[in-house]
Amino acid sequence: MWNSPKVGVLGGGQLGRMLVESANRLNIQMNVLDVENAPAKQISSHDGHVVGSFKDPEAVRKLAQSSDVLTAEIEHVDTYALEEVAGEVKVEPSWEAIRIIQNKYNQKKHLSKFGIPMADYLELVKNTPEELAEIGEKLGYPLMLKSKTLAYDGRGNYVVRSKEDIPAALEALKDRPLYAEKWAHFKMELAVMVVKTKDGVLSYPTVETVQEDSICKLVYAPARNVSEEINQKAQELARKAVATFEGKGAFGVEMFLLEDDSLLLCELASRIHNSGHYTIEGCGLSQFDTHLRAILDLPIPEKSLELRQPSIMLNIIGGATPDSHLKVAEHALSIPNASIHLYSKGDARPGRKMGHVTVTAATLQEAETIIQPLIDVVDEIRAQRTDIKTKAVKSGPSKPRPTVGVIMGSDSDLKTLVPGLKLLRDYFGIEPEVEITSAHRTPNYMAEYAASAASRGIKVIIAAAGGAAHLPGMAAAHTALPVIGVPVKGSALDGVDSLYSIVQMPRGVPVATVGINNSINAALLAVRFLGSFDPSLQRKVEAYAENAKKENLELKGTKLRELGWEKYFEQM
Amino acid sequence: MWNSPKVGVLGGGQLGRMLVESANRLNIQMNVLDVENAPAKQISSHDGHVVGSFKDPEAVRKLAQSSDVLTAEIEHVDTYALEEVAGEVKVEPSWEAIRIIQNKYNQKKHLSKFGIPMADYLELVKNTPEELAEIGEKLGYPLMLKSKTLAYDGRGNYVVRSKEDIPAALEALKDRPLYAEKWAHFKMELAVMVVKTKDGVLSYPTVETVQEDSICKLVYAPARNVSEEINQKAQELARKAVATFEGKGAFGVEMFLLEDDSLLLCELASRIHNSGHYTIEGCGLSQFDTHLRAILDLPIPEKSLELRQPSIMLNIIGGATPDSHLKVAEHALSIPNASIHLYSKGDARPGRKMGHVTVTAATLQEAETIIQPLIDVVDEIRAQRTDIKTKAVKSGPSKPRPTVGVIMGSDSDLKTLVPGLKLLRDYFGIEPEVEITSAHRTPNYMAEYAASAASRGIKVIIAAAGGAAHLPGMAAAHTALPVIGVPVKGSALDGVDSLYSIVQMPRGVPVATVGINNSINAALLAVRFLGSFDPSLQRKVEAYAENAKKENLELKGTKLRELGWEKYFEQM
Repeated sequence: MWNSPKVGVLGGGQLGRMLVESANRLNIQMNVLDVENAPAKQISSHDGHVVGSFKDPEAVRKLAQSSDVLTAEIEHVDTYALEEVAGEVKVEPSWEAIRIIQNKYNQKKHLSKFGIPMADYLELVKNTPEELAEIGEKLGYPLMLKSKTLAYDGRGNYVVRSKEDIPAALEALKDRPLYAEKWAHFKMELAVMVVKTKDGVLSYPTVETVQEDSICKLVYAPARNVSEEINQKAQELARKAVATFEGKGAFGVEMFLLEDDSLLLCELASRIHNSGHYTIEGCGLSQFDTHLRAILDLPIPEKSLELRQPSIMLNIIGGATPDSHLKVAEHALSIPNASIHLYSKGDARPGRKMGHVTVTAATLQEAETIIQPLIDVVDEIRAQRTDIKTKAVKSGPSKPRPTVGVIMGSDSDLKTLVPGLKLLRDYFGIEPEVEITSAHRTPNYMAEYAASAASRGIKVIIAAAGGAAHLPGMAAAHTALPVIGVPVKGSALDGVDSLYSIVQMPRGVPVATVGINNSINAALLAVRFLGSFDPSLQRKVEAYAENAKKENLELKGTKLRELGWEKYFEQM
Repeated sequence: MWNSPKVGVLGGGQLGRMLVESANRLNIQMNVLDVENAPAKQISSHDGHVVGSFKDPEAVRKLAQSSDVLTAEIEHVDTYALEEVAGEVKVEPSWEAIRIIQNKYNQKKHLSKFGIPMADYLELVKNTPEELAEIGEKLGYPLMLKSKTLAYDGRGNYVVRSKEDIPAALEALKDRPLYAEKWAHFKMELAVMVVKTKDGVLSYPTVETVQEDSICKLVYAPARNVSEEINQKAQELARKAVATFEGKGAFGVEMFLLEDDSLLLCELASRIHNSGHYTIEGCGLSQFDTHLRAILDLPIPEKSLELRQPSIMLNIIGGATPDSHLKVAEHALSIPNASIHLYSKGDARPGRKMGHVTVTAATLQEAETIIQPLIDVVDEIRAQRTDIKTKAVKSGPSKPRPTVGVIMGSDSDLKTLVPGLKLLRDYFGIEPEVEITSAHRTPNYMAEYAASAASRGIKVIIAAAGGAAHLPGMAAAHTALPVIGVPVKGSALDGVDSLYSIVQMPRGVPVATVGINNSINAALLAVRFLGSFDPSLQRKVEAYAENAKKENLELKGTKLRELGWEKYFEQM
């Protein structure tokens, strides 16, 4: 199959460039239609490129003549030229899909037919203030006035906050075909990359996108504080939406997550997408790899779309001067595990996407800590721009995601837990999530807490209880996470009641029990679990043991030898 | 700093090509000196390349004129030309370093001065059978006869098995400058990529290399069954050796690990190296990224050299026909998490490096399982070659590396452990490492076992003991891994003696205790730990709980309702 298929791509910007990176590694020739020396052409030296515009039918025909498959890095292409050449070469995805998707109103009409949930929307026919006022009464304010075509990165959109904004909105978007969209009061924006192949529809994990100035600023993979259930639901919705279109390749799907955890599809792109750049380092195959494979009917192992490690992608956006964005790249050189991608577009304009940085780490929390200084640099550069007035999106530092959950049946158990909590925080730098929840007094909350812990990023739960100490075992019954039980010594029976209640669990539901009142050991056990998958933490556990050894051997041992046992005992 | 420095590279093969990939992402222009359309030139479209040979002084001078820094993807360059231009441009690493290293005898002499351990070696001056026979008596047989220069991938080497081989050996390597090397009886070949910067010497993790037909076949990162101590020792040796040379950049260091765990340096390359290809997917920065940064004095965060995930690299080597190697690439398309790199060298010759594949996974064991079918394809293609006669290196499947260690104080505890062992193996597909070691009868072996467990890849230890049950606690005292204790019920005291001995550990040394005789829960607890960092395993834990629920609710519950309590009880 190699050396044979030539892929023609309409557009040679950063998306085309990253597609060429993937094609280069498979020795597949990619013919790029774009201006001379476009970013994608710079890393692909052969005479099959076409100089011209992806909106020019003649140039598209020329590209078709030298290619076996055509694809596009952008929706705003001449789909009539694609329709014309579709008899001679394969066009993936189909020109029909691109034609529907490039008009956002038609896209919504199409998706509505298939029952995809979206914010309500209404078409403008006359573009008059009266018409928009009428729509405003139906959809309510604020609403989004949108151009049906040629809208991207916030261009072609206008927020109509009240009736008073109507004249300005229509003035800003005059002469464009328009529609209005009901405001979605979302708590988070999510995105999923979908790959449509000859055999089916695959999806990457659900990610969180943070927009600033209507441009993607950050992508968190996985989405922060989003349950596995929502992750699956969002992927299903994205796959369902993409399945309604003809043709093969990668599609970017953007969604709103509402306060009630329901999902609305926001919009869809018939191409590789900014929200999928994290896949280059984050997954076994990147969106560029899988797009190429999909349009060439090459196999895609499903596992290669899973997340290898949590990843955060930060866009490098043009600042006030043509090279101010390079400060971000220069700073990124010193950020651990940061992969820098510059697009070689030459001088920047404010707001132009010039590159991106992806940071990977063992946990999303660690990635957030690592990338924070770089976000600060991005915010500084943005602050110098005069073309924008709004305040920066508060993108961090987000609340670090705890990996250890600590629960107790009653606040009377807290004093027993304090030595362990202090050890976690002060020696190991781990800030646990601490809650009171009783198996007997708040059984439902306890169940919900345990069942949702894994999706919150918790890796291990410590549960303390006394008497008929059911909490650790009940928590274990509601989660697949390891649960460590601390028997608390009560007023009777010396804590043996608690110990037996915790340790003698039936086969099938284990609790890792430590000694009575021994929260220190519970904390150390939690750290040992985490350390098995985190070498730097494991080294800290070793250092802790080393310290204890020194203290026993050197300090106490030496003192005992020096003082003799009798004096030593007197001083105890 | 961007857009300014132009880097000239002598040689545009696959190493140069992967270096250009890194340079492209930083928008650094790389001028390649090699034949027209060399692999590196194909992905770098500009007019700064030079057509010619890296052995031609005139071509090197021309490259120097258009570049700010010169580097090389190969040692066999004209170092006199580099010396000449070193006044005009920076040369990294220094021409002195390349000159010493390109002559393997001089390389060894140089390293000997700095006390680097190596196999004994002796120079041939006259290249006569008598001289070699004399050397043979000193070094013993077998010995390696080696060309001092232009030797790579086994070319220029001859194994002299006995005195009888001497004439053939000298005939094979006649007219070359020669030296002889004492045979190293190694148990494993290791390699470390080292990066020398303006500030110091950094190293990547120690990897294991498997050679076949004197060419690198496989690289395992990390090296299999190699302790953390040897990993550190090998890195130190590699850094120490590289520190003796002038100049900056990546150096590949190959070593022998002997039976007694001592290390000998085998040889060193003054460049990016095949044993470091795994770093592209395996580490935060690849060897190509860090080489480029080192020669340009750009920052390199040390953490970016750590392993993100275990990785295995498999070379794609030319087979019997010009395209037989493509079968490997084609098969690799279906291998999960396999990144394919083809070098676009055109037709293959038998034994030529045409590409490589890297597989990453959460554990090295998983990566081994995933890549095995591809190794089989490689072995099949090799079997069709007529230019080689030796048998294939048995490269797999290697013994899978257990993640769970199970120990018991006496074989009488085994029957208690069997239900847990079966659950691990049959339901969860985890084959544990099972040992008998007593805290009282074999205290030293027990300590050694526990202390070395982490370096063997063990993530959690299950320890069963009865009576004065010291084993779990003593094991915990010798490792930073989590230890799960199973109290075994003995002939007296109903197992409460064992339970107390295990659970009531002093503060500082935790044991995760389960119920008396409850090896099922010990196994489940181990699986829950592992599952916290392995989503597919966590899903299996959830499925196990779901099954148990169904069994209770549906099967038993339904039966009880149908039969009534009395009949149900009669049937029990």
